[in-house]
Amino acid sequence: MPTYQAPVGETLFLLDNVLHYDRYGNLPGFADASRDVVEAVLNEAGKVAEEILQPINASGDREGCKKTASNGVQTPKGFKEAFKAYTEGGWLGLSFPQQYGGQELPYVMTCAVSEYMSSANMAFAMYPGLTAGAVAALLAHANDAIKDKYVPNMISGRWTGTMNLTEPHCGTDLGLLKTKAVPQADGSYIITGQKIFISAGEHDMTDNIIHLVLARIEGAPAGVKGISLFVVPKFVVNDDGSIGAHNNVSLGSLEHKMGIHGNATCVLNYDGARGWLVGEANKGLAAMFVMMNEARLGVAIQGLAQSEVAYQNAAAYAKDRLQGRSLSGAKDPGKPADPIIVHPDIRRMLMEMRAFNEGARAFVLWTALEADILHRSPDEQAKQAADDHLGLMTPVLKGVLSDVGFLNTCNAQQIFGGHGYVGEYGVEQFVRDARIAMIYEGANGVQALDLVGRKLPKDGGRAVMTFFKKVETLTKEEQADPALKPYAEALAKSLGHLQESTMWLMQNAMKNPDNAGAASHEYMHLFGMVALGFMWLKIMKAAQARRGDAGMADKMDAKFTTGKFFFERMLPETGLRRTRIKTGADTMMALTADMF
Amino acid sequence: MPTYQAPVGETLFLLDNVLHYDRYGNLPGFADASRDVVEAVLNEAGKVAEEILQPINASGDREGCKKTASNGVQTPKGFKEAFKAYTEGGWLGLSFPQQYGGQELPYVMTCAVSEYMSSANMAFAMYPGLTAGAVAALLAHANDAIKDKYVPNMISGRWTGTMNLTEPHCGTDLGLLKTKAVPQADGSYIITGQKIFISAGEHDMTDNIIHLVLARIEGAPAGVKGISLFVVPKFVVNDDGSIGAHNNVSLGSLEHKMGIHGNATCVLNYDGARGWLVGEANKGLAAMFVMMNEARLGVAIQGLAQSEVAYQNAAAYAKDRLQGRSLSGAKDPGKPADPIIVHPDIRRMLMEMRAFNEGARAFVLWTALEADILHRSPDEQAKQAADDHLGLMTPVLKGVLSDVGFLNTCNAQQIFGGHGYVGEYGVEQFVRDARIAMIYEGANGVQALDLVGRKLPKDGGRAVMTFFKKVETLTKEEQADPALKPYAEALAKSLGHLQESTMWLMQNAMKNPDNAGAASHEYMHLFGMVALGFMWLKIMKAAQARRGDAGMADKMDAKFTTGKFFFERMLPETGLRRTRIKTGADTMMALTADMF
Repeated sequence: MPTYQAPVGETLFLLDNVLHYDRYGNLPGFADASRDVVEAVLNEAGKVAEEILQPINASGDREGCKKTASNGVQTPKGFKEAFKAYTEGGWLGLSFPQQYGGQELPYVMTCAVSEYMSSANMAFAMYPGLTAGAVAALLAHANDAIKDKYVPNMISGRWTGTMNLTEPHCGTDLGLLKTKAVPQADGSYIITGQKIFISAGEHDMTDNIIHLVLARIEGAPAGVKGISLFVVPKFVVNDDGSIGAHNNVSLGSLEHKMGIHGNATCVLNYDGARGWLVGEANKGLAAMFVMMNEARLGVAIQGLAQSEVAYQNAAAYAKDRLQGRSLSGAKDPGKPADPIIVHPDIRRMLMEMRAFNEGARAFVLWTALEADILHRSPDEQAKQAADDHLGLMTPVLKGVLSDVGFLNTCNAQQIFGGHGYVGEYGVEQFVRDARIAMIYEGANGVQALDLVGRKLPKDGGRAVMTFFKKVETLTKEEQADPALKPYAEALAKSLGHLQESTMWLMQNAMKNPDNAGAASHEYMHLFGMVALGFMWLKIMKAAQARRGDAGMADKMDAKFTTGKFFFERMLPETGLRRTRIKTGADTMMALTADMF
Repeated sequence: MPTYQAPVGETLFLLDNVLHYDRYGNLPGFADASRDVVEAVLNEAGKVAEEILQPINASGDREGCKKTASNGVQTPKGFKEAFKAYTEGGWLGLSFPQQYGGQELPYVMTCAVSEYMSSANMAFAMYPGLTAGAVAALLAHANDAIKDKYVPNMISGRWTGTMNLTEPHCGTDLGLLKTKAVPQADGSYIITGQKIFISAGEHDMTDNIIHLVLARIEGAPAGVKGISLFVVPKFVVNDDGSIGAHNNVSLGSLEHKMGIHGNATCVLNYDGARGWLVGEANKGLAAMFVMMNEARLGVAIQGLAQSEVAYQNAAAYAKDRLQGRSLSGAKDPGKPADPIIVHPDIRRMLMEMRAFNEGARAFVLWTALEADILHRSPDEQAKQAADDHLGLMTPVLKGVLSDVGFLNTCNAQQIFGGHGYVGEYGVEQFVRDARIAMIYEGANGVQALDLVGRKLPKDGGRAVMTFFKKVETLTKEEQADPALKPYAEALAKSLGHLQESTMWLMQNAMKNPDNAGAASHEYMHLFGMVALGFMWLKIMKAAQARRGDAGMADKMDAKFTTGKFFFERMLPETGLRRTRIKTGADTMMALTADMF
């Protein structure tokens, strides 16, 4: 059976030594989240993940969600109880305003906790995760009456929330959506249409489900400019907060998916359901996009989370499984064979996962702290810089962490050999679960295009130039340190590849926009590697600084070595990405469609 | 629902124009396999794949194999009938000797056909595939009495066969195996032990199952030198060929796997089963290894096959699905959106798959022809060269085609977006099915180590030097052709990376064998890319030669462009592989096991 241990020590190391959490103390609300509080909360979250969520992960996958005779959905055994424990523990409201029952703690804590929960049970963690997404959308756009009616009950876990965007004929291209909203005399709307791929769209864990639905008000403009956002509860909520009549929204069907079996992915039919407008009419897509950054960061965290739990299980197996002998002579001659961790190719996979996970975790937490600045800082300049960072890094994080996270689960599976292909160790579930993160919340091709088409040129390239400057400054500083010099130089070289590619894009995307599209996937990954390299140089510096502390030498040396591995074996891919980018779109686009 | 069309035209193009099938006419048996016969057989095989096997692929996955009340296995609906049709059509015996009921046709035809069958239904194709493997082992090692008793009934499809190697504590490291064989007075052996991961180990399609089992004769030496091969039928076969008593082999359990649900993966318990020695005592592993090349080529073909069927479905979807507009302006303004094939990132994935599939198919067929030379040529020198080729290329084919084939199924899935994660289009099944090919018949890490540790240094590097020479000669020749020059140069450059890496290995693996292990995965893929480049340069040359033929211009231009894409975007990865190889093992192996 799979195991999981929340890497609380790793999170704290990064907050303390790499991201300097103490420097954020002046942000509103951070005073309540002293270093001690952070540590206590993360430890508690680790326990919830390890003791409540992880034990029902494999069983939830096997059992899956089931359609009931009354057209409802039965979640796997234990999910309902776990959801109760999770929400009663206050985990859903960790960073939400106290006014609505939240704890208003830093968002970086929510992200750290979210990694643990997703590692332990991704399918489960989506229920509170989507509810939090719906809450964020309501807080940002709904009027007070709507907020007061729904948000406290969602934060407390009495109700859950969903996001309804996709329709059978449109996912990425929401301008095509057809779901109709007809205004009523009382100010409500009657919603009619079909939504698909609705995660947590129906279940048996709570009394009500609050759907946020994109629809087109009768007579609204075509395309994305005519889309509005509605709140459509499964059961109408009376003004006194009690639950009223069943609304005309019903389960069309339950999808059979490759993974995340414990989460109900639903077709929902809105047959004249009553809904209420959230925010302004025809501004629904913009309303969704405001919260998209955080939702996408959440998916990036899922990629990291699956990679981490897969790594932990593969490492344990590699130390335990005896098979063959070390190429350099038996390491454990008293046993019938050596543990497979002696084999370099097993090491390669473990080191790749490890180097990715530590760098990616730093990248996530850094970005989460920037979100805290954006949401809490009184300093307009700092807010703008944070907004720039989030806009730029979100597609990179979403695309790269989910792509590489998935490949890492495949590597973990490979370490198990045949035992990884069968259910017994649970590792094939990580592969199946991780796969969705590359697709939902905007497929990774969309992330890549968002990066090159929108985020790069935005504000004259201000965000990207700021990032380049930061990397350049760090590489220059660390080249002065002989121990770090080779890695600072490697990062400078890769930054060069990124800058060269950026320049190429500026010169060639105008000429032919397909050049941007043809480069986008490679550019996103090139960008991600430079960002991870930036993190790793900081981590290595911190590891060096801490290695003299009592009992820290081995751990810090291991960190330093993992960083070396990153710079030697992984970062060089930036050169290849650069080469591919510069081939442009001509050959890629040359064939007519009928030749495929 | 997924679709499949056997690429018979592609196979014939390669045989005719790239591999020059007509030059093999002097090999024994090839006279019966004229170009017309080949075409007819491939067309007929395509029909079997498309009309009999493909229709029960998705249903077979959903239904899976089930344990029956009487401890048997029920295969999915239609499998039994399909197996009857398949074997009655003579497909299992295509290349086996006429003496035993086969048709003795070239092995290259078996490989071409095997691609179609695996694309259409990988789980099904494993039943005849494993039977063919067992037949090959018996033909190579068993005495005439055993051959006569079992082989004709296996070729006719009356019985199937299996290979029993793995035990719970040993897969890769067969030296650890414990299954015991005790000699009896009548010359038979009593076999006791447990075997796991036995594909097609139990089923309801035939009256008997002929297990080939590795076991240790009482008192045999420890390790791999004490392993013998036995034939252990599920039901003892009487001397008159009738089926006798049930042997003491029983189904321990049926594995729940990530994919290939239609194939029964079994734990088999041998509780004093009666078996007969195949070949010499204590030479069982060598006996297995003789047929390993062909079994591994079969797995390489599975990687190609899943990549091909995934490509076909993704291409069809990309032409059909309307979403968004082309970056360079609407391509189909009369429709609500353009088909997604207009998007460069969709093209990127399609072109990568396509370029891989065509190159890989050529690589497979080339190698299959070498196997024909090995098995049929009277010319000792030609046989040796063919044997060298097979030894060298088999791990490359198995490792690279299954690795990249799997990634291609993931790319195909990505093109479907959310629709690729659910069952509806059947594409997620390709991902789950393809995944096993990286693991079984020697995990890809074992292939990589076989390549660098055994195949490279063998006979003073004769095989590898011959291959380098072939590539070098071709690149020199084609540099004279202005249309091919850039690609010939690119291949020469990549060959340089391979030669440089080979030299590095020679110098550094002696110093520290872990350097070979640390480089092996990268080296295998670098090797594979050069081999695919070698194929592509030949294909482009052929495409150029044929473009003037009536009605061929568009197709040949598409081929040429696909080759260009391969050389521009894909082949450059050889430089990165070379860089990684030369980092060596030091950092990779630096951490102590307890730091993981």
